[in-house]
Formats: sequence, C-alpha cells, structure tokens
Amino acid sequence: MSVNKNSKISELGLIEYCKNIFKTRNPCVFKGIGDDAAVVKIAKDKYLLSTCDMLIEDRHFTKRDNLYDVGYKAVSCSLSDIAAMGGEPKFLLLSLGIPKRFKFGDVDKLLKGVKKSAAKFGVDIIGGDTNSSDKLIIDVCMMGFAQKKNLAFRDGAKDRDYIFVTGSLGGSIYGRHLKFLPRVEEAKFLTDNFKINSMIDITDGLLLDLWRILKASGVGAVIFEKLLPRHKDAKNMEEVLYMGEDFELLFTVDKNTGDKLLDKVKQRKISFPLSFIGQIIKDDAKIWYVNKNNKLISLKPRGFVHF
Amino acid sequence: MSVNKNSKISELGLIEYCKNIFKTRNPCVFKGIGDDAAVVKIAKDKYLLSTCDMLIEDRHFTKRDNLYDVGYKAVSCSLSDIAAMGGEPKFLLLSLGIPKRFKFGDVDKLLKGVKKSAAKFGVDIIGGDTNSSDKLIIDVCMMGFAQKKNLAFRDGAKDRDYIFVTGSLGGSIYGRHLKFLPRVEEAKFLTDNFKINSMIDITDGLLLDLWRILKASGVGAVIFEKLLPRHKDAKNMEEVLYMGEDFELLFTVDKNTGDKLLDKVKQRKISFPLSFIGQIIKDDAKIWYVNKNNKLISLKPRGFVHF
Repeated sequence: MSVNKNSKISELGLIEYCKNIFKTRNPCVFKGIGDDAAVVKIAKDKYLLSTCDMLIEDRHFTKRDNLYDVGYKAVSCSLSDIAAMGGEPKFLLLSLGIPKRFKFGDVDKLLKGVKKSAAKFGVDIIGGDTNSSDKLIIDVCMMGFAQKKNLAFRDGAKDRDYIFVTGSLGGSIYGRHLKFLPRVEEAKFLTDNFKINSMIDITDGLLLDLWRILKASGVGAVIFEKLLPRHKDAKNMEEVLYMGEDFELLFTVDKNTGDKLLDKVKQRKISFPLSFIGQIIKDDAKIWYVNKNNKLISLKPRGFVHF
Repeated sequence: MSVNKNSKISELGLIEYCKNIFKTRNPCVFKGIGDDAAVVKIAKDKYLLSTCDMLIEDRHFTKRDNLYDVGYKAVSCSLSDIAAMGGEPKFLLLSLGIPKRFKFGDVDKLLKGVKKSAAKFGVDIIGGDTNSSDKLIIDVCMMGFAQKKNLAFRDGAKDRDYIFVTGSLGGSIYGRHLKFLPRVEEAKFLTDNFKINSMIDITDGLLLDLWRILKASGVGAVIFEKLLPRHKDAKNMEEVLYMGEDFELLFTVDKNTGDKLLDKVKQRKISFPLSFIGQIIKDDAKIWYVNKNNKLISLKPRGFVHF
C-alpha cells in the first residue's frame, strides 16, 4: 500500500492504517484495533476489555459546560464502550491535562463528576496521570471483564438478523450528551440472556455506527423510518439518523432471538425501551431506508467524524 | 479534611486528594493510586498492571522535536513504569490529539516511533482513540502482567536496605530523554533473581523519586555523592540529583541481597551498569547527603513537577 505523506488525515483512514501497521503478536489478543474495546484473554473463560476515550475542551465540550457534567460524561462514554462489547466495567485510569486557569475547586468538580459515574457502576479509579496544559484534556482508560459467551463484536451481524436499538435517538447535543446513563445494565441483561450477534454503542450517529457494523460484517441493512425511536429533543429525522452522542446500544440478533425479544417487549418483560428498527440483508455495507411514505432510498453513512 | 476551593493546584496534593476521594472497593484491586502502575489480581498468581502517561506539546516536548522520537518516548515512559513495578509489559492503548497542521506523514512518523518502542519489548498496540486538537497530545495506557513474587512497590523500603540505581544520571534533557531504552529487561532480571523491597523509575529526578519511596515507606536515606553514577551529559551534580527523565531504576534490597548484588557486580556477572548509592535509615522521608568533602547535609526533594 502506498500512502501520500502530504495527504490530509481522516479518522477512518487513520484507524485502518493503524490496524495495518500495528499487527498484534501475542496469542492472547482476541480483538485488537477496530471495535469499541480491545479484548485480551487473561484466564480460562475470562477476558479483559480495555478502551480509552479522550475528551478535549472546545472539541467535545466547551468552557461553559459544567465541569461536573464533563467529568461524568468522560467516564460514561467509556462505560458505554465496555457495555457495548458485553463486558462489565471494573477499573479506570484517568489522565488529565489541567488548564493553568483552574483553581482547586474546578478540578474538584471534575473529579466529583468522574466519581459519580464510576461509583454508579462499581468502577474503581485505580490510577492516572496529571499534567498542566492550555485546554482541559480528559482521557479515560476503562477496563472490564467478560465471559466468552457475553462478548459482542461489530463484525458478527448476519443476513436476516433483526436490528434493535435501546432508548430513543436524536437531539442529544442539546444537553443529554452530558448526562446520559450508559447502558451497562441493559447490555448485561441482553448478553446474559440472548445471543447477540453484533453490537455497538451509538456515539457518532445511528447511520455511521450502523454502517460500522455492516462494514465489519460484510452485510447491508434495511431500516424503517416509522420504527425509529425518535427522542422528544430531536428537531427532525436528520438528528435521529445523524446527530450522535446518543450512547444507546445498537445490536443485531438472529430471527428466533429477535422474535423472542419482540415477545418480551410486547409482554412488558423488558424494563428498558427497546425498538426493532429493521433487518440485515445481503449487501455490502449499504443502508436502505424506508421513509414514512414507504419509499425505499439509499442513505450514506455520514455522522460525527473526529477530523 | 477541609479544602480551599480557590487554592492553586499542586501535583502531589492532587494525587493525595484523589487517593482520598477515590477509595477502591473491588477486592481484586491490589494497589490503586500512588505507585508507578496500578495492580489488579486477575487469576491465581497473575496480576494485571496498568498505567497511563500523557505527553503534551510544549510541555513534554517541542514542535521542533522529531515526531518519531516523541512517539518512541511516549511508549518508553510507560514501559518504564510497568518495569519499575516488576511487570512484563504486554499491550497498550494509544489516545491521540492530532493538530490540524499535521499531514499524514507527520502522524506516520509518530506512529512509527510508537511501534518501534512497543515492538522492541513485544508489546501489542490493541486500541486507542483519535481526535483533532490544537497541540499534539499522546496518552499511552500500558498494561502488563506480573507474578506476585516479582511485584515491587514504592512502599516496601526497610531500615538498613541498600539503595541501588541502574545506569547513570543527569543531563537527560539534552537529548537522551527522547531516546532512552526503558529498563524492562533489567527489571525482569532483578525481580526474577532477587527480592526487591521497593522500586521506582526515575522520571522526576533522583531526589524526588527517592523521596517518594521514603515517604511511602516511612523511612529516610543516606546517599553518597561519590557513589552516584554521573552521566557524561550531566553538567554538574545538580543535574544528577534533580534533573529527571533518566528513566533508570531506583530500588532497595535488604543487606544480604545487597551484598550478593555487589558481589555479582564485582564479578561482572551483571550485564548492565548498577551502582550502590547509599542506605535506608530510620527517619521520616528525609534525605541525607554525604558530599565529596565528606560533609553530611540534608537535601530537599525538589525535582520536575507537573504544575
């Protein structure tokens, strides 16, 4: 592969490039770059999940945002990643770049937010690094454990799978993105009780994250506008499809499991909102959309990108 | 404890504060905040070590530094932390904040440096996060494994222990700090073959890091100027004592083990430079220094601080 050294950087291109140059060698690496978390086998039927997520001032939050909320969000994003792999989050390391303008009270607020989200799910803060910087930087490295049967990857979606999403989508950026409850318990319930073929958390918009599953699995999807759970904060369907920072679980299961899930939803035996939104088809990472006028259109997977 | 919300932030104060508010609850957490790496028991006689280290442009390196060297250093710092705990580094996650001015070739150089240091010690790069930012930010989260007998902490130094240091000290900032070889193999040799009572890697200067051992262990130390291994790059003894970024191992062993080590050094059976520099005494985190005129003076533990 030849690479133009002067070309601009795209996030997806960079991740692909890293996958290529950073081949893993340890046989216990079960899943490296390219999913919500890395998976390493550490004992008989015990897997270590690890993921990191960096938030930077003026990029992921602003100076005006409440620092407690920012700390809370930093941890919650990573909790969501571990959950989306079918893992139970356990520990985190916290790297901070702290602006010179900060007083002790500012850091304290941030730390209290970090603690709140971690404590809610029994996660211990076991280490970290502190530095001074111009802008506030928070990098959370979250670790957790999983049994093999609970692991869920992006690349397991199969032809005819049902597609589900938890909660409702869109308009997160108007405030919810700082205060969401990561779907840790929901993911545990789902992976404990059902065979989940593929799963991801929606960080960059339904369409982009669905496309990630499709691309990794080598399949396509049809989704239905009228089945999409629109959040009351969403101003329009664009926001439901593309806005991102919903931190809901998007997953696929085979038809049998899907029917069982739908039964349970009907019988109100599932304690959280869960919507069937479409089906996996034989196709190459293409998303087909049946709009409210029952017209089939092809949608492109744009969404929040980090560059 | 009452805290003044308007007070300035000191690194040591912040870490102490974090230790206090982030009490750990999981019984498998063997060592949380306050050492070179966190230690979690993951199986019978198998411990997971994890640590993160954030480097920020204009703080830890400059725009003029070679990006390959910067990537190499980011990984080597964390390797050094795992080594100093008696662990074998295995995997890392890489979080990047990439400046908009960067072309693909710039990121490529950085990644090649990351890869070089990781590959040298068989460490796999299993995941990460990429973002755009104003200044280059690199946060490496390194994980490794250790058996119980190899674990070495800061708080295990005992009265009458011999104090040793690998390599030579001072003047690192003139170039060596970007190209050092982390003492991974040396740490493995030492912890495999000798009972190490306490260990740390010298990042912030001999005196500050020695003080960290003393403070954690509740002891004091006498060190001898004429025994200190001065690097040829060091302009004076100040730099040997305070400059930091040496990334050498500083450790203590009981008298018997110390005598064995000294024998081996004399017989040239140790393949790396190792110096006996002094002894642990009953005292409270105080450092006594015998200078070249044989005068005993008390030294304060200043060194590089991150705020």
